[in-house]
Formats: sequence, C-alpha cells, structure tokens
Amino acid sequence: MRNLALTIRYVGTNYHGFQVQKNAVTVCQTLQDALEKVIGERCDVKGCSRTDAGVHANKFVLSIKTENTIICKGLVFALNAVLPDDIAVVGCYEEEAEFHARYSCKGKRYIYKIYNSRLPDPFIHNRSYRYPVPLDVDTMNTAAASFIGIHDFSAFCTLDNYNKDKSKIRTIYDCSVKKEDDLITISVTGDGFLYNMVRILCGTLIYVGAGKIEPNNIPEIIKKGDRTLAGPTLPPQGLYLDEVYYSPINI
Amino acid sequence: MRNLALTIRYVGTNYHGFQVQKNAVTVCQTLQDALEKVIGERCDVKGCSRTDAGVHANKFVLSIKTENTIICKGLVFALNAVLPDDIAVVGCYEEEAEFHARYSCKGKRYIYKIYNSRLPDPFIHNRSYRYPVPLDVDTMNTAAASFIGIHDFSAFCTLDNYNKDKSKIRTIYDCSVKKEDDLITISVTGDGFLYNMVRILCGTLIYVGAGKIEPNNIPEIIKKGDRTLAGPTLPPQGLYLDEVYYSPINI
Repeated sequence: MRNLALTIRYVGTNYHGFQVQKNAVTVCQTLQDALEKVIGERCDVKGCSRTDAGVHANKFVLSIKTENTIICKGLVFALNAVLPDDIAVVGCYEEEAEFHARYSCKGKRYIYKIYNSRLPDPFIHNRSYRYPVPLDVDTMNTAAASFIGIHDFSAFCTLDNYNKDKSKIRTIYDCSVKKEDDLITISVTGDGFLYNMVRILCGTLIYVGAGKIEPNNIPEIIKKGDRTLAGPTLPPQGLYLDEVYYSPINI
Repeated sequence: MRNLALTIRYVGTNYHGFQVQKNAVTVCQTLQDALEKVIGERCDVKGCSRTDAGVHANKFVLSIKTENTIICKGLVFALNAVLPDDIAVVGCYEEEAEFHARYSCKGKRYIYKIYNSRLPDPFIHNRSYRYPVPLDVDTMNTAAASFIGIHDFSAFCTLDNYNKDKSKIRTIYDCSVKKEDDLITISVTGDGFLYNMVRILCGTLIYVGAGKIEPNNIPEIIKKGDRTLAGPTLPPQGLYLDEVYYSPINI
C-alpha cells in the first residue's frame, strides 16, 4: 500500500473548514471527490489540522493510502484539472508507511493578516480582518514575545468537548508582528495549538496594539489562565495555516 | 454645482467592465445605485477609462456633478457601507468645474500580472494570468524598452468601430517587467491606450519571454503596423488599471 503526502493551498472562504461534515461543503470532501474522479476510489484522507470555516491555507498537508499506481506528478496535474479554483495541489510525495499528516506533525506556523485601515480594500476582503483603529506594532511585538516558550494557554482557548479535560500546555517557538503599508501580519509557530488559540492570541495582540491591554500584563494573563482577561477571538478570514513541520523545529 | 472626483478600487471579476451596458452588471451602474442610496439622486458618472469585463483597478477615478452638500469624507464612508465588497471608494475631492475624469486625464499606468508556474495558486486565480512555460524576464525587458517613445501602435490594437479611422499614435513613457517569485508584473505607462493595446503588448512580451518572438524584432513589428506579427491579446484577469495621472507625466 502506498502512503502519499499531498501538499495543498486553499482559499477557505467557501468551505466549512477542512474536516468532513454533514450538510456542509468542506475541503476534505472536495478533495475526496476529486481523488475519486482521478483514481476511481474513495480514499480516506488524513489532514494535518482541522481548520475552521473561512480559514485559509498557504500550505496544508494530507496523507492518503492507495494501491493506485499513478505517478505523483501525474496525480498533481490531474487533481488540479478537476478541483475547483479555490483549492490547488502543489506537491505529492511518497511517504513511509507510518507517516500520518496529523500525528507525524512536529509543529505549525499560522499567520493572521490584519488590514489596519478605515477604508476597505476589495483585493484582501475575506483574506484579512479589517481593523480601523491604528495599531502600535512595537507594543504588539513586546506582547508577542511573552507568548514564546512553554506555557499553559488555558486563557487563550475556547473550551469544547474535545479539549476540556486535556493538557493546555503548548510550546510557542516564535511569535512576531510585522507591518507593511496598512497590512499587519502576525506569525505564530508552535508545536500545537488549542481550539481557537491563534485567533485569541491575535485578538489579544490587537487589544495591546489598540491600548486596551498593557503589553506587560501578558505574563499574568497566561499565569491566571482566565479566558476573560485575554482579547477577543478574531474572525476566521484573517487566519492562514502557513507552514507544517515534520522535522523537529529549531528556531 | 459641485464637481466631485472619486477614487475607487475594484476587483473586476464579477463586472462587465466599467461602462454602463444593457443586461449586464457594470461597475458604473453599481456605483450609480450606491450614490442613489446615499444622496438620493441618479448621478451622471464620468469614468477615467472604459475598462473591459474582468479587468481590475487598483486606482480608478470618476467625476460626478451634484448639488448635494454631503461632506467628502462622509460620502466615502457612506458609499463603502452600501457598495458590494468588490468595490471600494478610497478618496473623494472637490474639483474645478471643468475637471472631467476622462478628458482631464494626462496618462495612465496599467500593470499586467502573469503567474509563471505549472501549478495553480488559488490566491491569485482570477487576479493574474497563469502561463506555465518559463519566461525569460531579461529578454522581456529588452523588448519592453522598444515600446517606449512616440509610436504608431496599429500592430498592437484591436480595431473596432470607435477607433478604426482615428490616430494610432500614442506615447509610452515607461514599459518594464519585474519578477518576484513566480509572479511577473509588466508595467506600462502612457498618455493613452488603444483598444486592447496593453493586453496585446503584454501578449507580445510573453511571446518574447517564451522565445517565440525575438526581442530585436519589436521595432520592426511596430513599424510594419501589422497586428498578425504581434503576440496574442491576453485575457482580462491579469490586467489592472494601476494609476491615473492628471498632471503632466515626467519620467
């Protein structure tokens, strides 16, 4: 049995996230449909992450097992010919039998794009979150540095049935903010993320940039583990899964 | 009577160009509808250019005459509140009575985006033209330089009823090509452009980059004025009106 790793990119606007759901179009299902058209079988697809509705991916890895003998390059071109225009396959590799897109993953980088302007820009609508109040990127960077390290991120997650009794300890390798014209990009790299964690980290950084939370207060918010002290959960359209790591991360 | 200049940006994908047409949604009509909602009258809108279906604008200027006393800033915010997400008003200024978005215009810059890759990228689908064969940007730049100056561009236009008996002489101030990762951007600045002229110039530059036309042949193609010697008319999705000049251009 071959174990194939596929790398894809997608604009998440029209999808209810990656994971298959009843009564909603998802990226996984759209890929399974495309695979079925190309190799004639319904594959079980393992995704590297369960991204939410409206979230994008610059890079997303999935693994499939198949007996089909199609060459990797051919699979890439054939899938792109049948996939809708908002999903593209950009790579395909043979993997070891034990490779699993999710469980073999050593870490991920997410980016969050904030369009910091009072005026809309149609070219990044649905691909960024517009925040009209001017943000101070320097204080955001000071606060971002406090997230780096091994912490209990209870204050920065939405509790659901899946995670409520599990460890909230995660390692953040890097968290930084940069500004280019009116576009602010927050980058967060970690070994794993709790539910809504990146969107809450970024919401907290926006509150810091707008002067609603002091950057020096971040360590205490982390320590107290109280969700109500952190900033809001930002909407999905600014969030991108940007990189997926399968080797140990050295930053 | 006030004469207002509005600056807008739009993603052209869902519009049949700027100019009002019967039985097709256009940018002009969508703006007139929005203006009517905000100031309660159907304004005559003069656009700086008649962009084609699917063509985008990073900057597009239009002028309207109105007796309404709404302040410029208020008009910008009110219009953005009622316009669809693919059109944004980014500026509004009081102009002299004789200002006309089209006739007062001294020149324009267009850019054309080519995604030079065998693989699609969903984030720039419909916002660039994908060309899978590797292009040589240096030879494209050599060819582009030949377009600069005052020339008869008969070889680089589509004849229509409007232009068939008119002068085909235009001044090109700048024409250059740059590459960033897989994205090639052609920039063309001129005092005016014939029908499809930018798309044919860019199609000719693609043929040069792909080795189908010698860069040294451009002066002769211009001189002969024969449309069949130039390259193809590229599709609209890569084209952007990028700048509109109302002062003399010094380059």
